[in-house]
Amino acid sequence: MSEDKAKRIFNKMMEKDRFSHWMGISPVLLEEGHCVIQMTVKEKMLNGFEILHGGVAYAFADSAFAFASNSFGRIAVSIQGSMNFEKSSVLGETLFAEAKAIRVNHKTANFDVEIYNQNKEVYYRFRGTVYRKSDSVLEN
Amino acid sequence: MSEDKAKRIFNKMMEKDRFSHWMGISPVLLEEGHCVIQMTVKEKMLNGFEILHGGVAYAFADSAFAFASNSFGRIAVSIQGSMNFEKSSVLGETLFAEAKAIRVNHKTANFDVEIYNQNKEVYYRFRGTVYRKSDSVLEN
Amino acid sequence: MSEDKAKRIFNKMMEKDRFSHWMGISPVLLEEGHCVIQMTVKEKMLNGFEILHGGVAYAFADSAFAFASNSFGRIAVSIQGSMNFEKSSVLGETLFAEAKAIRVNHKTANFDVEIYNQNKEVYYRFRGTVYRKSDSVLEN
Amino acid sequence: MSEDKAKRIFNKMMEKDRFSHWMGISPVLLEEGHCVIQMTVKEKMLNGFEILHGGVAYAFADSAFAFASNSFGRIAVSIQGSMNFEKSSVLGETLFAEAKAIRVNHKTANFDVEIYNQNKEVYYRFRGTVYRKSDSVLEN
Repeated sequence: MSEDKAKRIFNKMMEKDRFSHWMGISPVLLEEGHCVIQMTVKEKMLNGFEILHGGVAYAFADSAFAFASNSFGRIAVSIQGSMNFEKSSVLGETLFAEAKAIRVNHKTANFDVEIYNQNKEVYYRFRGTVYRKSDSVLEN
Repeated sequence: MSEDKAKRIFNKMMEKDRFSHWMGISPVLLEEGHCVIQMTVKEKMLNGFEILHGGVAYAFADSAFAFASNSFGRIAVSIQGSMNFEKSSVLGETLFAEAKAIRVNHKTANFDVEIYNQNKEVYYRFRGTVYRKSDSVLEN
Repeated sequence: MSEDKAKRIFNKMMEKDRFSHWMGISPVLLEEGHCVIQMTVKEKMLNGFEILHGGVAYAFADSAFAFASNSFGRIAVSIQGSMNFEKSSVLGETLFAEAKAIRVNHKTANFDVEIYNQNKEVYYRFRGTVYRKSDSVLEN
Repeated sequence: MSEDKAKRIFNKMMEKDRFSHWMGISPVLLEEGHCVIQMTVKEKMLNGFEILHGGVAYAFADSAFAFASNSFGRIAVSIQGSMNFEKSSVLGETLFAEAKAIRVNHKTANFDVEIYNQNKEVYYRFRGTVYRKSDSVLEN
C-alpha cells in the first residue's frame, strides 16, 4: 500500500523531472522513506579530469533524496545537503543511490544517501535535511 | 600574472569538462583562489517541481569551486561539500557562482561559493574542502 | 528597541545556561539576528594535544548561534551545524564568536558564525540551521 | 593486537585530555578505527532550555571521533565536522558515542559518530573528516 503510494509519487515527480531524465535514472526500489535508483555514467557527465563531475554525483543523490523524502505524501523541500567524496566514478560504471529516512519530524526530516556500485562499494555519501510542507505531492 | 595562470588553468580544465559545457558556463572573473562564473537556467535543468534541480545548482557551485581550488596550479580534489538551499531558481534566470578561498593549507583548503542573481541576491550557499595533490594542473 | 529585546532575550537564556557560564562567555554585541560574544581559553578546555578541544570551540560557536537565532523572539532549535577547523587555539587566547543571520524564513533560518582572535584572524567557521517554533522565548 | 594499540593510544590521549575528563567519559570499546565511549548528562552540561548544550553533545562525538581516528597510530587532526540534532538529551541520561571509520585514505579519513541511549535510540549524528599527519601518536 505505502509502496503503491511511493510508486505513484515517484511517477508523478519523475514525469516532469527533466534533469533526472537526462541522467537516465531508473527505479530499483520505492517504499515509504526509502528508495534505490540507478544510472550509468555517461560521457556527457564527465569533468575535465575524466571522472564523473561531482555535481552530477550530488544530483544523483539529490534525486534519490527527493523521491524518498516526498514518498510520505507531503511536499518536501531540500534545505541543506552535504556530500563526502570517497572514490571517483568513471565512464560506463553503473551506480546505485540508496536513500533512507534517518529521522522524520513533523516539519523537518533527515536522510542518508549512499552511492555505490554493483559490489556495494561506496563512492559518495550524502546527508541532507528537508522542510516538510503541508501540501500534498499527489494533489499539486 | 597569477591572473594569466588562473586563465590558462581554467581553459585547460574547461576544454574537456563536458558537464560544465552542458551547463553553458562562462567565466566572469578568474584569479588565484577566486573566480566568478555565470550560467542561465534552462528547461533541461528543471526538476518535477518546475525549479532548478538542486543537483544542477550544486554542480554549478562545484565547478566554481574546482576552478578556484585548482587556480593555484596544483591539482585539487574535492573531498567534502555542503550546500544550503535558500531560494529556488526558475527557468530563464541568469545566475553567478562566486568561489573564494577561505583557508589554504599545504594539503587541504576550504572554499566558500555563493550563487546569486544579477541583484546579488543569494540563492544557494556552498562550503567545501579539497585535498591538494603535488601534481601540476598544467603539466597533467 | 530590537537591541533592547535582543539583550533581554540574551539575559533570560544566559541566566540558566550552565555550560555558557562554565565557558565564561560575555556579550560584546547583541542585536536582532547578530551577536558577538567572547571567552578566554582556559586549562580545563584543552584536549590531549594541548589545544582547545574541538567540541568546546563548537560549543562557543553554538552559543553565539543560539543567542542570535533566538533574538527575533521565537524559540529557535538547532537542527544541523557544521564546523571547519582552520587553526588551533591555545591556552590564554581570547576568542570572539560572531553570529550572523544569512537567511530567515518562516520556519527555518541559517546562520554563519566565525570564531576569531583580536586581530580578526579566523580559527573556526560554523554554519547552522535552526527550526523556528511559534513559542516566545520571553514568555516561556 | 590492534586492540591493545588502540587502548594504549586512548590512554595516552586521555591522560592529558582535560575536557574529556570534565565530561566524565569512559571507554566501552576500543579497536582500530572504531570506538564506543559513554558519559552521563550532568547539571553543568545544560543550556538555558534545560537540555544538554549542543556543544557538549558535539564535544562528546568529537572525542569519540578523535580516539577512533588516532587509533591507527598516526596523529589525526579534525578538519571538518557536521552534526544533526534529532532529539534533545536531558539531565541524568547515559549516552554512548560510537565512532566508525567509513573511509581511510593516505592523508584524509572520514568517520561517522552516532550518539544513542541504552536502547540504541539515536539522539545526534555526526560526520567528520580528519587530516592524517605522518607523526606517531605514541611517540609524540
